[in-house]
Amino acid sequence: MVSGNPASAPAKESLQQTEHAKNFLPPSKHGSQYGIIKNQAFLPGTAKTIHTRMWNPQGENVETVGRGDGVEKRLNSREDVHSVSNSQNRFPFLENLGFPQLPHPLLLRRRTIIIKHALKIRRSTMRIHINTQELNAGISTVIKALSVRTTVSILEGIYLEASNGWLLLRCTDLSLQIETNVAATVQEEGAIVLPGRLFSEMVRRLPGEMTFIDVKKGTATIESGSFKTTLQGEDAEGFHTMSTVTREHIIKMKCDAFKNMIRQCIFAAAQDDAKPILAGALLEQHEGDLSLVALDGYRLAMRMERIPGGMLADRSAVIPARSLLEISKILPDSDQEFDMIFSKTHVMIDLSHTNITARLMDGEFIKYKQILPDGHKTRVRVNRQELMSGIDRVALMAREGKSNLIKFTFTSDKLTIAANSELGRSHEEIAVDAMGEDIEIAFNAKYFTDVLRVLDEDELYLDMNNNISPCVVRPVQGSAFYYLILPVRLFSGM
Amino acid sequence: MVSGNPASAPAKESLQQTEHAKNFLPPSKHGSQYGIIKNQAFLPGTAKTIHTRMWNPQGENVETVGRGDGVEKRLNSREDVHSVSNSQNRFPFLENLGFPQLPHPLLLRRRTIIIKHALKIRRSTMRIHINTQELNAGISTVIKALSVRTTVSILEGIYLEASNGWLLLRCTDLSLQIETNVAATVQEEGAIVLPGRLFSEMVRRLPGEMTFIDVKKGTATIESGSFKTTLQGEDAEGFHTMSTVTREHIIKMKCDAFKNMIRQCIFAAAQDDAKPILAGALLEQHEGDLSLVALDGYRLAMRMERIPGGMLADRSAVIPARSLLEISKILPDSDQEFDMIFSKTHVMIDLSHTNITARLMDGEFIKYKQILPDGHKTRVRVNRQELMSGIDRVALMAREGKSNLIKFTFTSDKLTIAANSELGRSHEEIAVDAMGEDIEIAFNAKYFTDVLRVLDEDELYLDMNNNISPCVVRPVQGSAFYYLILPVRLFSGM
Repeated sequence: MVSGNPASAPAKESLQQTEHAKNFLPPSKHGSQYGIIKNQAFLPGTAKTIHTRMWNPQGENVETVGRGDGVEKRLNSREDVHSVSNSQNRFPFLENLGFPQLPHPLLLRRRTIIIKHALKIRRSTMRIHINTQELNAGISTVIKALSVRTTVSILEGIYLEASNGWLLLRCTDLSLQIETNVAATVQEEGAIVLPGRLFSEMVRRLPGEMTFIDVKKGTATIESGSFKTTLQGEDAEGFHTMSTVTREHIIKMKCDAFKNMIRQCIFAAAQDDAKPILAGALLEQHEGDLSLVALDGYRLAMRMERIPGGMLADRSAVIPARSLLEISKILPDSDQEFDMIFSKTHVMIDLSHTNITARLMDGEFIKYKQILPDGHKTRVRVNRQELMSGIDRVALMAREGKSNLIKFTFTSDKLTIAANSELGRSHEEIAVDAMGEDIEIAFNAKYFTDVLRVLDEDELYLDMNNNISPCVVRPVQGSAFYYLILPVRLFSGM
Repeated sequence: MVSGNPASAPAKESLQQTEHAKNFLPPSKHGSQYGIIKNQAFLPGTAKTIHTRMWNPQGENVETVGRGDGVEKRLNSREDVHSVSNSQNRFPFLENLGFPQLPHPLLLRRRTIIIKHALKIRRSTMRIHINTQELNAGISTVIKALSVRTTVSILEGIYLEASNGWLLLRCTDLSLQIETNVAATVQEEGAIVLPGRLFSEMVRRLPGEMTFIDVKKGTATIESGSFKTTLQGEDAEGFHTMSTVTREHIIKMKCDAFKNMIRQCIFAAAQDDAKPILAGALLEQHEGDLSLVALDGYRLAMRMERIPGGMLADRSAVIPARSLLEISKILPDSDQEFDMIFSKTHVMIDLSHTNITARLMDGEFIKYKQILPDGHKTRVRVNRQELMSGIDRVALMAREGKSNLIKFTFTSDKLTIAANSELGRSHEEIAVDAMGEDIEIAFNAKYFTDVLRVLDEDELYLDMNNNISPCVVRPVQGSAFYYLILPVRLFSGM
């Protein structure tokens, strides 16, 4: 096991190692122009690796790979800074100490070293000054993964860990974990778990510009302006942290593009537990293409994007729709690039100061490609907005019936949308441009509006074969999306 | 009974009369510059009166009082218009027909006549053109009184009645009734009841600028732009209309002032049914002063305003808090005046095009005046915003305890707000200006924030005697409001 891969180890053994590892943190090195943007535990006494990415004074990334050996020694941070900045990203002080510099096989085109020091964080003590607004922003980010109504009461807390000028905040429900780093003036390093809901609502209302947090013997004193509170914390050792994601595969994506992929896809994931794997979405990389697919047995949504960078190997993973939703809420609306780091069991979204780790779903995803129709006998070009508001109006009547059924009648230049219930009958005509056979086909109104609502295009193609095979919604240009909606069989009298 | 007062008659008999009356409507008179702004049924064969207020071409109000005699005769509206406009608000055509002009005792300083004609509305037919946006605004107003989850299914509908260039919309849950008139081009007069929720949601989405409603044999066809629907209606005869409010007492108020009175008072009304009368608020007129009082056994809220006009007799009535809330939502934010018309059992808010009728609550209101404290031993001047946000922060901790208890410690220049629970202890200090004895007193945090939240003043007085008698919240100037909050008895250890 010593040199084995923790991701492939049996779950129980892996958890024990992680528990053990929490007593140690990577060596700390930073100066005024330096920032550790990721803190990850590593495994003392084994050859497991940890990564600590830093900025050097030139703004370049310096990546270090640490190997745990259980030795606890704290490096002087001022010395580290000078060593790094005086030596063009080399660490001569380590070489002087006898540690060889080796390239690491998992890191491509990056300079790596092995370091052998670990720092033991003093638990249940801490003293920091922090900007209230930044603290609040950090808590708002991590609180999305806070456990609610759990039997593991410590997971209803927020994990705080202060070291090296940063306060690390972390929440997890063991399926999703969000952690973020907020700059802080750290007078004493340490960690504690505070009651999540109460602490977050308090911080949202703190009156002072700065907040002082002082933890002694498991009790946190929080002062801001005229307000002061003491909060009973829980020992940070008891917090369950999700295991570190080994860097088996990395996909680079742009934030706004991935946010859109999620928004335009996950609504089609199953809401019930009939087939658990369908509560997730399949992320597939094939060369430079990335696709996200969700389906629930009645409709399928697929979004495609080109990958701007990262590894080119093929890879697929099923991510819970709920985790994707929280990821999309945290991703900024910019075209900034970020890394998705995959192990066999987890994915980690690396947004510099914020990391989101989601457990992947076990099992095979549905082999959806075999249900995609080959061609079409009718292709209709429609205005998305007109179709959506037409369905919206007619569907009110359909909603009164139990089936929520709307009927489309396509002729060469006209679409008639109709619905009826015991309260009456509605219909609306909209102009379309149809090629191929006339067709009468019925759908659950919700499945159509779900698709039309998330799209931004003015015009769409609807491709159909007959009224018992699925309708495909495609872009007029390109192939960024592909939606498939199963029709409802029509009986006479509709 | 023939000449009796319907309000004082036994409920059953009164209802039968009203049912009968619904076959008749007051005579209709209007031209392009005329508008009937209130349609009320009257009782044929009795001396009961009805009121129809109109505008004449000079923009003056013309008020007519009708007396039912069961004779059905329809007046020619063109003739009426000319008669009125040519005769300085007299109705010579009625005098010619042999009807004397008499002043009515209930109408002060107003010219009144008695007319003897009634029009039978043809039920379940109607044909109108109406502006979609105005129709939608009208429905949004009346829908607030729509019955939900009622056993009387027709009350889940909206009553529509077209006549004389107006569409009357009406909803009621028999405790509250809202009706409004929307200008319409009426091609055929009539009435129908349409499914409330479905019709309102449809109208909100209608695509055309104008909407055409055609009712035949109880089925409404609604067309707007490219959209068309048929709705199964219910016979308007079956709709329950609340009985007409006899004009026993009238209070004139400004819309924005009454809206504020409601907002700053009804939060203190009881939420439970332990004492049903406390689910209402007491409206009291004493000469030119109007007060609104609500209390729930733990706190009391009282708002006072001067009345700009109306009758000067003393009067009091208990109005359900829920009805007041809906009234406040409909009242515009302007200082325009409106009439509150009281009978023994009902109040009607007359907003020209819109009428709101609420059933008054039976029984005596609590004799609250005897619980108001006489003086105070401590008077504290506080900044409302500082006190509110201080309580807000400290109350988060109080909320974790079961009692939601916060403790105030007043000294001459400082208020300390404190709360504790098993999770910890919070406190905050704010500067105040206190006169009299130092005091330590505890409250349910919610009762204090409820008061502070609805007020607009920068500074307030808190008047107290000791920690087991109520705290009074008053304005620094004037006497527009008076809040009383009962303390919670302090035990040692707080």
